[in-house]
Amino acid sequence: MNTIGHALRFTILGSSHGWGVGCVLDGVPPGIALDVAKDIQPDMDRRRPGQSLLTTQRREADRVEVLGGLTDGHTDGNPLALVVRNEDQQGKAYDAARWLPRPGHSDFPAYVKYRGQNDYRGGGAFSGRMTAAMVMAGSVGKVLLRPHGVEVRAHTVQVGEVRVERELAWEELPRAEQSLVRCAEPEAARRMEERVEQARRAQDSVGGIVEGRAQGCPVGWGEPFFGSVEAELARLLFSIPAVKGVDFGAGFRASAMNGSEHNDPFEARGGRIVTSTNHAGGILGGLTTGMPVVARVAFKPASSIAQPQRTVDLRTLEPATLEVRGRHDPCIVPRAVPVVEACLAFTLADLMLLAGRGAA
Amino acid sequence: MNTIGHALRFTILGSSHGWGVGCVLDGVPPGIALDVAKDIQPDMDRRRPGQSLLTTQRREADRVEVLGGLTDGHTDGNPLALVVRNEDQQGKAYDAARWLPRPGHSDFPAYVKYRGQNDYRGGGAFSGRMTAAMVMAGSVGKVLLRPHGVEVRAHTVQVGEVRVERELAWEELPRAEQSLVRCAEPEAARRMEERVEQARRAQDSVGGIVEGRAQGCPVGWGEPFFGSVEAELARLLFSIPAVKGVDFGAGFRASAMNGSEHNDPFEARGGRIVTSTNHAGGILGGLTTGMPVVARVAFKPASSIAQPQRTVDLRTLEPATLEVRGRHDPCIVPRAVPVVEACLAFTLADLMLLAGRGAA
Amino acid sequence: MNTIGHALRFTILGSSHGWGVGCVLDGVPPGIALDVAKDIQPDMDRRRPGQSLLTTQRREADRVEVLGGLTDGHTDGNPLALVVRNEDQQGKAYDAARWLPRPGHSDFPAYVKYRGQNDYRGGGAFSGRMTAAMVMAGSVGKVLLRPHGVEVRAHTVQVGEVRVERELAWEELPRAEQSLVRCAEPEAARRMEERVEQARRAQDSVGGIVEGRAQGCPVGWGEPFFGSVEAELARLLFSIPAVKGVDFGAGFRASAMNGSEHNDPFEARGGRIVTSTNHAGGILGGLTTGMPVVARVAFKPASSIAQPQRTVDLRTLEPATLEVRGRHDPCIVPRAVPVVEACLAFTLADLMLLAGRGAA
Amino acid sequence: MNTIGHALRFTILGSSHGWGVGCVLDGVPPGIALDVAKDIQPDMDRRRPGQSLLTTQRREADRVEVLGGLTDGHTDGNPLALVVRNEDQQGKAYDAARWLPRPGHSDFPAYVKYRGQNDYRGGGAFSGRMTAAMVMAGSVGKVLLRPHGVEVRAHTVQVGEVRVERELAWEELPRAEQSLVRCAEPEAARRMEERVEQARRAQDSVGGIVEGRAQGCPVGWGEPFFGSVEAELARLLFSIPAVKGVDFGAGFRASAMNGSEHNDPFEARGGRIVTSTNHAGGILGGLTTGMPVVARVAFKPASSIAQPQRTVDLRTLEPATLEVRGRHDPCIVPRAVPVVEACLAFTLADLMLLAGRGAA
Repeated sequence: MNTIGHALRFTILGSSHGWGVGCVLDGVPPGIALDVAKDIQPDMDRRRPGQSLLTTQRREADRVEVLGGLTDGHTDGNPLALVVRNEDQQGKAYDAARWLPRPGHSDFPAYVKYRGQNDYRGGGAFSGRMTAAMVMAGSVGKVLLRPHGVEVRAHTVQVGEVRVERELAWEELPRAEQSLVRCAEPEAARRMEERVEQARRAQDSVGGIVEGRAQGCPVGWGEPFFGSVEAELARLLFSIPAVKGVDFGAGFRASAMNGSEHNDPFEARGGRIVTSTNHAGGILGGLTTGMPVVARVAFKPASSIAQPQRTVDLRTLEPATLEVRGRHDPCIVPRAVPVVEACLAFTLADLMLLAGRGAA
Repeated sequence: MNTIGHALRFTILGSSHGWGVGCVLDGVPPGIALDVAKDIQPDMDRRRPGQSLLTTQRREADRVEVLGGLTDGHTDGNPLALVVRNEDQQGKAYDAARWLPRPGHSDFPAYVKYRGQNDYRGGGAFSGRMTAAMVMAGSVGKVLLRPHGVEVRAHTVQVGEVRVERELAWEELPRAEQSLVRCAEPEAARRMEERVEQARRAQDSVGGIVEGRAQGCPVGWGEPFFGSVEAELARLLFSIPAVKGVDFGAGFRASAMNGSEHNDPFEARGGRIVTSTNHAGGILGGLTTGMPVVARVAFKPASSIAQPQRTVDLRTLEPATLEVRGRHDPCIVPRAVPVVEACLAFTLADLMLLAGRGAA
Repeated sequence: MNTIGHALRFTILGSSHGWGVGCVLDGVPPGIALDVAKDIQPDMDRRRPGQSLLTTQRREADRVEVLGGLTDGHTDGNPLALVVRNEDQQGKAYDAARWLPRPGHSDFPAYVKYRGQNDYRGGGAFSGRMTAAMVMAGSVGKVLLRPHGVEVRAHTVQVGEVRVERELAWEELPRAEQSLVRCAEPEAARRMEERVEQARRAQDSVGGIVEGRAQGCPVGWGEPFFGSVEAELARLLFSIPAVKGVDFGAGFRASAMNGSEHNDPFEARGGRIVTSTNHAGGILGGLTTGMPVVARVAFKPASSIAQPQRTVDLRTLEPATLEVRGRHDPCIVPRAVPVVEACLAFTLADLMLLAGRGAA
Repeated sequence: MNTIGHALRFTILGSSHGWGVGCVLDGVPPGIALDVAKDIQPDMDRRRPGQSLLTTQRREADRVEVLGGLTDGHTDGNPLALVVRNEDQQGKAYDAARWLPRPGHSDFPAYVKYRGQNDYRGGGAFSGRMTAAMVMAGSVGKVLLRPHGVEVRAHTVQVGEVRVERELAWEELPRAEQSLVRCAEPEAARRMEERVEQARRAQDSVGGIVEGRAQGCPVGWGEPFFGSVEAELARLLFSIPAVKGVDFGAGFRASAMNGSEHNDPFEARGGRIVTSTNHAGGILGGLTTGMPVVARVAFKPASSIAQPQRTVDLRTLEPATLEVRGRHDPCIVPRAVPVVEACLAFTLADLMLLAGRGAA
């Protein structure tokens, strides 16, 4: 199930400690100008490890290479195949713990499912490193959306119990890139950084929430029933390793609301129909309403922590203590921001192409 | 996009005010004994409208008919086609408001998307009535899961701000069926009923949260990356009209936790590897761990309320006031319980068949 | 695998001796005027059994009913569900031979595959009766193609060793409907009728070839590689029971040709680029060229013949003699003509919608 | 539409004159020993250009590289990504004819479809070079089939009007590899070689027919209706550039037969049910019967010939004369033999995995 999408089909390749990771995009319309250095590499750089002490010290250049689908700087109708190589693989670091499944990791169920034949090094294809491919796919999505005036931005709204208390304006969001935790509200950002630093010093990790927004979607994207905008976005967002919750608009908070409070009244403004509030997160009946699409994505704390943890030896079923070595993020949320952005961009680009077809 | 699933493919048919609604299931293994009256009808009856004052007064027998796929009481390898007819359609009730999109409903984006050609009566294919088809698909899923010892139960854990404060044991869950709101904790159930009644009297509606659990899944269901258990479940759950949030295990609460707290330690118990806690909700790396699968599903308050609401006339863009007539649920959560259960059952049955294939 | 198509997805339902057969079409654009009596029923009537002594005497009204997808005479964006009921089922006729697989039929492999749980009556879902659903899907395809000037016609070009010796003009093809064998060349038609009559008297059957043509396709329909026009058409055509060969343009004859003879030279005519010959059958590189699409479809002789045949008792592996009772076609080719036409129409409509999306 | 398959999904990448060509296989069961040098490279070498004067003089090492999906010599559950680089690209050779579409080639419809943005060099993704990826996919299919006793062999049965007149035994087929045209019957092989040589000297090309057979398939592979063995094989076979016809068993010849002659009588032999003849080509009702699967695949003569041909200048619509330069095969049939074999192997492996799932 390494392929997702309908008009735009994204196949994800590779693993944490093999040759590299890649993304194959089938269905990209031909004739689109695509400049890897300007359109894709910057997002890759935002996701890249080793940006600060707050993230893993693994070093990867993550230089994007094109294996197909571009001719003379334009998409040519063939599958667009993009890869980054793995450079700083310290696979050996994982050998010691071959038989000791790491708590919170895929190791145990993957071992059972694949009868020990899975690529166990660093999570293999379950690794967070796979999100590099998601970012590439998303950057292409952004290129497709751009001429239609659709923009996507993500930012950190919670780390541990520290949260952004007010709703930020769209114009404030770019400020997130100036903070190590990618939070657009400076005071909250400062406290989040402290919170991550505290986890790091304790050889621990901490979770958080990323909000993604899309501005400029026209009315009516999304397909009937199983192709609702929420269903399509959620499927991709829940494919990001460590995501444990997704909601839209008022989301979980909507469950405590009355209909008279939650329903967004319609009004006409400048010849367009809008809603005066946006509890729906820009989606009604699974279709875009023209209001901003708003998704919140909950990340669990990174599973890899250096503290000793209780586990079981797969060979003997004896209890064991595990100390996960290697270089890990005390908080993956800052690096997850471009990933959430990518998921929104890819899915909306797919839904745009589907809608453009004129079919239901 | 009216089809979902991989080994088991579910196509949803019909609309709120047409001939009826139906479900076509392709890929059901042949030779499975299936008794519609015992295996499907009871779940349909749980979802059926008109069960109490707390739910809509629309009356539908929702008698399941088989159009294909059964021979001599067993599945025969052909698509299993199940339908229920619409009987109590008061489509006329909707004509008045043809041009006044109801706040919180699909009316507005559907009108734009379909250029006015959609079935506008009662939401058409965006109606909650479509969930009758989901329930049928889920009941078949339960039949497929049963011989493998997998059981699914859902129950209400929140209505408005009233919530179940403690974690309920699996054995307590059947008690939910004895409460009008399908809450398994009697004291909370009583307060939830009051909360719904209060909304009903105020011609308002109220949201809530349903928890679904699956017991007995073996280790290793789920497919790589985009086929993760979370991604697959979320896609189907977000197809339920009115769902605005989904999380698994500790879910959104995980974002406030440390890794050392969230990671579930492994231990061997009776020759099996289990975890001593279940913050992961039975899913690691997108694969089942053998622990109970736990999903929480947030429903917004029903959009149809009798209070006057502000909207816009689609023809003139003039402001208008709308009073939604017809018979509606002040709280859809109780009737959503079998729907959430169905989504879990269908998806897990699909993942079971995929896993059985032996392929990744 | 009861669903086919990409932008337009066709799910086939039912069986020969159950409730009926049906077709569910997902992805039909909304707002298309569709008149079942005028747009679908006439094609159904062409396929219907009992039209003459040359075809089976089974009697079915094959009256098309709509279960969803139409509102006020227009498609509404919901799945279009069309069914015909089975009326003249003489399922009992098949009971005698439950354990004696009919030569040339699916009975034996279906029995093994479904471990005896398949619907064995009259072939169940392997029956030629399923083609009624294909005709419905094709008629909808014709409706979608019509405003774009694309027309599809099929006719019989061979029955047994009797063949149409010259290439017929497009304008001659409607004459096929005036002949019992649906051959557009009167002298060949007369000889074909004799050939069928001879087979019928001998309690035997005879095969034949149907040619399908599509006029008016623009340049560039078809998708890259596995979505070539030939691949898409062949997949659907080979789903018709009894089809054992498909070729396009010069087809099998091309294998005996030189490139200098086979290559169709380009020329400009009236501002359009055309080819002076059409050995390619209107398809180059899997894409339409603007020239007529030409497919030939080989049907084996109907497997059901009244002559005694050698078979084996599935219970004992003892040799047995079987006389297939029931009412069967001595030659299915005349009734297959609208089915071939339907396959072309459905597939081209799907490719049209895909191409319209603007994507590769 | 660059992906095909169900349990086993094959995505094809690259183009004739870009970085290379590749194959991504998703769904390969984990734990399969795979030795690229022994299991894949030999088939690649059979397809490789430059083997004799009868084939193109383009030189490609076609050394298979693995980008993912193998760990310690075994499949690991991740997508298996295999590539070969393009080395001997003489793309410049094509520049001259940029605006002169080659008769018999995809140039013209691809130009229109992609509005001139396609990779025009040597056919780009429409090139026969893409079949290198098919061969890789097929070799993996063979590895999956081998432990189940299923073997696939293809050989040339016709070149121009020269054909093998008798039915060859399975044991004779390996002899095909000793002939330059890959024909297993020495006398016919000799005459075919002359026929190709004659075409080459005339700066012309010639077509032919390849027969593929699979021995050892159990009863009951294939899925209902649109997943029939014929439909699945045909879709892949018609994706091979230059294929214009496909039939199974008696195929087109069946259309001239009577049912009493064509129906294969059942008999029990050694406790197994077999048929005494195999006009069905091992497929009844779209399911394998246990008899050898037999497909015939018609190739048109290669479109690239050095003779002057008539075409039209795309810029001016003026008539033009084109001489296709570059190095081309006077007969692609010998090199197509491993490609047909690969298509059979891939599709049967996919159907095997589907059948193993136990579902219909």
